[in-house]
Amino acid sequence: MSVRVGVIGTGVMGADHAATLHRSVRGAQVAMVADVDTARAEAVAAGLGARSTGDAAVLIADPEVDAIVIASHDSTHADLAIASAALDKPVMCEKPLAPTVPDCLRVMEAERAATAGGAAPLVSVGFMRRFDPGYLELKAALDARACGAPRVTHCVSRGVRSGPGATNEVSITQSAIHEFDVMPWLLGAPITAVSWHAPASTGPVPGLDDPQVMLLRTADGVLTTLEVFLNARYGYDIRCEVVGEHGTLALGNPARVVADLEGRRFAAHPPDWRPRFADAYRLQLQAWIDAVAAGAPPPLATAAEGLTAIAVAEAVIASMRDGGRTVAVEVPPLP
Amino acid sequence: MSVRVGVIGTGVMGADHAATLHRSVRGAQVAMVADVDTARAEAVAAGLGARSTGDAAVLIADPEVDAIVIASHDSTHADLAIASAALDKPVMCEKPLAPTVPDCLRVMEAERAATAGGAAPLVSVGFMRRFDPGYLELKAALDARACGAPRVTHCVSRGVRSGPGATNEVSITQSAIHEFDVMPWLLGAPITAVSWHAPASTGPVPGLDDPQVMLLRTADGVLTTLEVFLNARYGYDIRCEVVGEHGTLALGNPARVVADLEGRRFAAHPPDWRPRFADAYRLQLQAWIDAVAAGAPPPLATAAEGLTAIAVAEAVIASMRDGGRTVAVEVPPLP
Amino acid sequence: MSVRVGVIGTGVMGADHAATLHRSVRGAQVAMVADVDTARAEAVAAGLGARSTGDAAVLIADPEVDAIVIASHDSTHADLAIASAALDKPVMCEKPLAPTVPDCLRVMEAERAATAGGAAPLVSVGFMRRFDPGYLELKAALDARACGAPRVTHCVSRGVRSGPGATNEVSITQSAIHEFDVMPWLLGAPITAVSWHAPASTGPVPGLDDPQVMLLRTADGVLTTLEVFLNARYGYDIRCEVVGEHGTLALGNPARVVADLEGRRFAAHPPDWRPRFADAYRLQLQAWIDAVAAGAPPPLATAAEGLTAIAVAEAVIASMRDGGRTVAVEVPPLP
Amino acid sequence: MSVRVGVIGTGVMGADHAATLHRSVRGAQVAMVADVDTARAEAVAAGLGARSTGDAAVLIADPEVDAIVIASHDSTHADLAIASAALDKPVMCEKPLAPTVPDCLRVMEAERAATAGGAAPLVSVGFMRRFDPGYLELKAALDARACGAPRVTHCVSRGVRSGPGATNEVSITQSAIHEFDVMPWLLGAPITAVSWHAPASTGPVPGLDDPQVMLLRTADGVLTTLEVFLNARYGYDIRCEVVGEHGTLALGNPARVVADLEGRRFAAHPPDWRPRFADAYRLQLQAWIDAVAAGAPPPLATAAEGLTAIAVAEAVIASMRDGGRTVAVEVPPLP
Repeated sequence: MSVRVGVIGTGVMGADHAATLHRSVRGAQVAMVADVDTARAEAVAAGLGARSTGDAAVLIADPEVDAIVIASHDSTHADLAIASAALDKPVMCEKPLAPTVPDCLRVMEAERAATAGGAAPLVSVGFMRRFDPGYLELKAALDARACGAPRVTHCVSRGVRSGPGATNEVSITQSAIHEFDVMPWLLGAPITAVSWHAPASTGPVPGLDDPQVMLLRTADGVLTTLEVFLNARYGYDIRCEVVGEHGTLALGNPARVVADLEGRRFAAHPPDWRPRFADAYRLQLQAWIDAVAAGAPPPLATAAEGLTAIAVAEAVIASMRDGGRTVAVEVPPLP
Repeated sequence: MSVRVGVIGTGVMGADHAATLHRSVRGAQVAMVADVDTARAEAVAAGLGARSTGDAAVLIADPEVDAIVIASHDSTHADLAIASAALDKPVMCEKPLAPTVPDCLRVMEAERAATAGGAAPLVSVGFMRRFDPGYLELKAALDARACGAPRVTHCVSRGVRSGPGATNEVSITQSAIHEFDVMPWLLGAPITAVSWHAPASTGPVPGLDDPQVMLLRTADGVLTTLEVFLNARYGYDIRCEVVGEHGTLALGNPARVVADLEGRRFAAHPPDWRPRFADAYRLQLQAWIDAVAAGAPPPLATAAEGLTAIAVAEAVIASMRDGGRTVAVEVPPLP
Repeated sequence: MSVRVGVIGTGVMGADHAATLHRSVRGAQVAMVADVDTARAEAVAAGLGARSTGDAAVLIADPEVDAIVIASHDSTHADLAIASAALDKPVMCEKPLAPTVPDCLRVMEAERAATAGGAAPLVSVGFMRRFDPGYLELKAALDARACGAPRVTHCVSRGVRSGPGATNEVSITQSAIHEFDVMPWLLGAPITAVSWHAPASTGPVPGLDDPQVMLLRTADGVLTTLEVFLNARYGYDIRCEVVGEHGTLALGNPARVVADLEGRRFAAHPPDWRPRFADAYRLQLQAWIDAVAAGAPPPLATAAEGLTAIAVAEAVIASMRDGGRTVAVEVPPLP
Repeated sequence: MSVRVGVIGTGVMGADHAATLHRSVRGAQVAMVADVDTARAEAVAAGLGARSTGDAAVLIADPEVDAIVIASHDSTHADLAIASAALDKPVMCEKPLAPTVPDCLRVMEAERAATAGGAAPLVSVGFMRRFDPGYLELKAALDARACGAPRVTHCVSRGVRSGPGATNEVSITQSAIHEFDVMPWLLGAPITAVSWHAPASTGPVPGLDDPQVMLLRTADGVLTTLEVFLNARYGYDIRCEVVGEHGTLALGNPARVVADLEGRRFAAHPPDWRPRFADAYRLQLQAWIDAVAAGAPPPLATAAEGLTAIAVAEAVIASMRDGGRTVAVEVPPLP
């Protein structure tokens, strides 16, 4: 029996999730989509043979919706996750789980209440890099100590162009947050302290420091450098190198075609995250659906991990607002 | 409603197909597996919740088997495909469709008889490279004339170790046959003439020329060099470079992780075809299942294309047996 | 005391040799340059503080010229080398030593006569790839049997645009001849048989097959494929891969800078042979000057090796004129 | 007439300079070498046909020594340079010019006194990366604004094993100092502020933080990350990526040979700086000798630039000793 999924938000991300569920995920059926832009919701629904609504609450309550994907505006995540959990419906919420630690705590409390009887966790967070074959291969090699104990890591996160309304805070809570989740996952150690730095601001977006550079310390003693550059222009480019005691391990550049043209030997960069992480998104949704169908705990990031990533983001923002000083990450007691 | 699939042959290839259908293909259910080694069939079936049999005929005839994957010994392909077609059941037959042109013709005749009323073609051939994202991206760039009209292509097909009983003929009908199919598909032109060459024979397998080098001419005037090396030892390595009028396009090296260790910067080669073509196999099966479910013509290689590839193989074998002279490819009139 | 060098020919190649001798070779002094285009000779001479002449014979006979570089038209090489040898002056002759085997034999006879008393060989041939750090590193690894005994090699020789008057024969005697020399040097075995092949001719130069593909067999049993493409357009690109019993060794892509721009990750191809082989030319000239100064046999290709390369070229031309059949290489008894 | 060079210090660096001058630099002659280890000095001298001495003062004063290379212990650099300048002899001093700013000032004062009459500067500093073809190509592309204005750069400096007596200070004054010179040269802007960071210390050398990470700010607003790792074990690896407004430019990995062996596709790392920067050292010495012979200002780093690099090092050391706080670089008024 297929899991009947409701997808909230039919922007680029939500539409992509819906299409992936519909075409490539075994055991899933997109039953309904919701968007405040009802025309957009209808258009997406029509392509999938699903129903649509302008009201996320209707979707959550629908008896023919078994599980919920939340891909609407960040500010709505917490309340939608809470409403879903109240009906015992599993949720796969896009990152961030919520923009603030207190909002994440509210979600965790709702989940705890709903699962007090011993049910599997209801809330998963869409940190899809954990399902990227590249990161997984990197983690396997690291866990096998192929390069010895890690000492330093270097991360780069570049996109072509920032979205509307980009701010330093948004860079941190929407882009850098991927590293705030994936690096502790990769290293097996939480981030304990951070600092924020940037070159002189000359970018195209007034008030936006872009690129930004962050230093992250994890409990294993590793020091991470992270460059986040929303307007890197040339392409979407995610890098991660782990420097260990006697060697390094890094994400490769998985170019499928190499060309010699016009004086150059080259491979194409993806224009955005979709081709780069298509496998990761598909595998994450498949793992989520498999767990939901089995009533098992999903192997995705948990609500607690979603909260922890936001706690790191808040520390980075504090450093940014205070001249780049080192700030300790404060994770409150979890419910 | 899922397509209920019967898988004949549970060796490495068949077991892999069954697992892929079970775990990763939407709309498919592995209903039964068959193998003359009944213990092996049972073991594979148990892992998938399927039934098993030692008799492929039983599987083909089973009323709860809608469609058939043939992954048994090459010599059995034709008869199994014919039996399936006789019952109007769609078949996805591993390459080669059959080891000889006459056997392929028999399959085509059976298919023609079964579909005379206008039904969709029943027989597809598992030339999975057509579904490999690398080959697809290469073809798209080529079709867009990114490098101008192609003039020469260079193909390399290397494996770690030849299977038991490897002969020159087997190298050609089982390994080189992939290029006999994919290069015409890529170039949009059939192979018209071939020649066979080899270095002095000094390899580990008596009587086996390994590596072999072939020259292939296609109707578009392109000249292809092909090295097939079964015992290349270092890894599984498939290369394809198209040299056009003003540039080249080549398959990249899709390494997901790059390491610096012990004086070297390196990426790992896959040990065999499974990691290299896992996506291709999955996407090929998904496309087949989608078409079968819809009653549409599958977008896989057809029986006629399977026959054509074997006709090329026969020409190459003729060249090998006649001192490397150039031999024209003869494709008989098709049913 | 510096070796006073006379450079005959001040085209691209000769001017490059003169400048390299002047700026970068220890122990050399460019004393005189000669060119039938006296204005060009004067211009080059002026930049180097050298004398110039329109008459190569004058240069050869000049008492303040100790050694001669021949970089004039191929058709003049033999006579100039013979005239130099007659005066016991060491010669570094650009490839080919002469366009035909009989002409090469005449040079060898003149050299034998001049060195009958036991002097060091006088005639060296400018097969500079023997001094390229890449080829040298490849040879060292091969000699150390890093990949086991070689079985197959794949060579590619591409340029941007053919010179005026390009013909199939010129492709062979001027471009492919580099591989005719360097592959036997690399493998330690002479070329014994060849065949010539080409795609349907559609290139920009009427009557020129471009690219051409050659198969070369060496006495060690290795089979070499060679693509020569004068009008490859995209860049100057020399490749060589040796496939051995348990691995491969290939020339790398010595890009000094890698860029990410406009959707691509790329490295630049050199526009012609000068940047690609600048080190090789410099090191070859230094080795030649060091040997000349010491009265020692130069470690460059000898006249006999220059002749052997032309014998291979003649066999390839014979194959080209005879439908691509395999032709044995005939090297006459050497003086 | 050759420039007669005296080389002080015949350790690895000095012996390398002497051999390069002897074999590969036009217009130079190694006249004498000096080392407190007289046996080592004699051995090096014997190979070059030079004289030797145990007393650097004797070498400096020798009437047949025209110019001096200083490659002895860092602590001796200043006094030797001053003694040479006092005799109007040009000096090429290995980095650092001296270990402290005051010592560098003493050298500058001696040079000013010696050249007050208008002579060409006498003191050059061996920051050889300025002559590395890779850095030069990077700088040319950067100056052409190929990637737009630079915003962030990432530098990595890794070696196999630290020398005896390695300390954090030595990492900074001997290794990181290369970036303190080459990055301002590359960007065209001085370093104005720095901070020092490190992972938890667990390396093989007690008391040595290794790797170290530094942040450098230049007057153009660019922020540079620099990892220095003396005991990286796997190889000698120097990286530099400049991230600009619309693209990046980075040093390539100039591997001359690529191999497929034992499951891997790889290129070798150099074991130390000699193969990596052999061209840079040769070209630097050639440029120095050419300038000395012509009485022209050498195009190498000046004494002022040697002082500036040490001023940056002192700021980094101050940051290291003060918890990683940001420290402004103080360059005193220069003589």
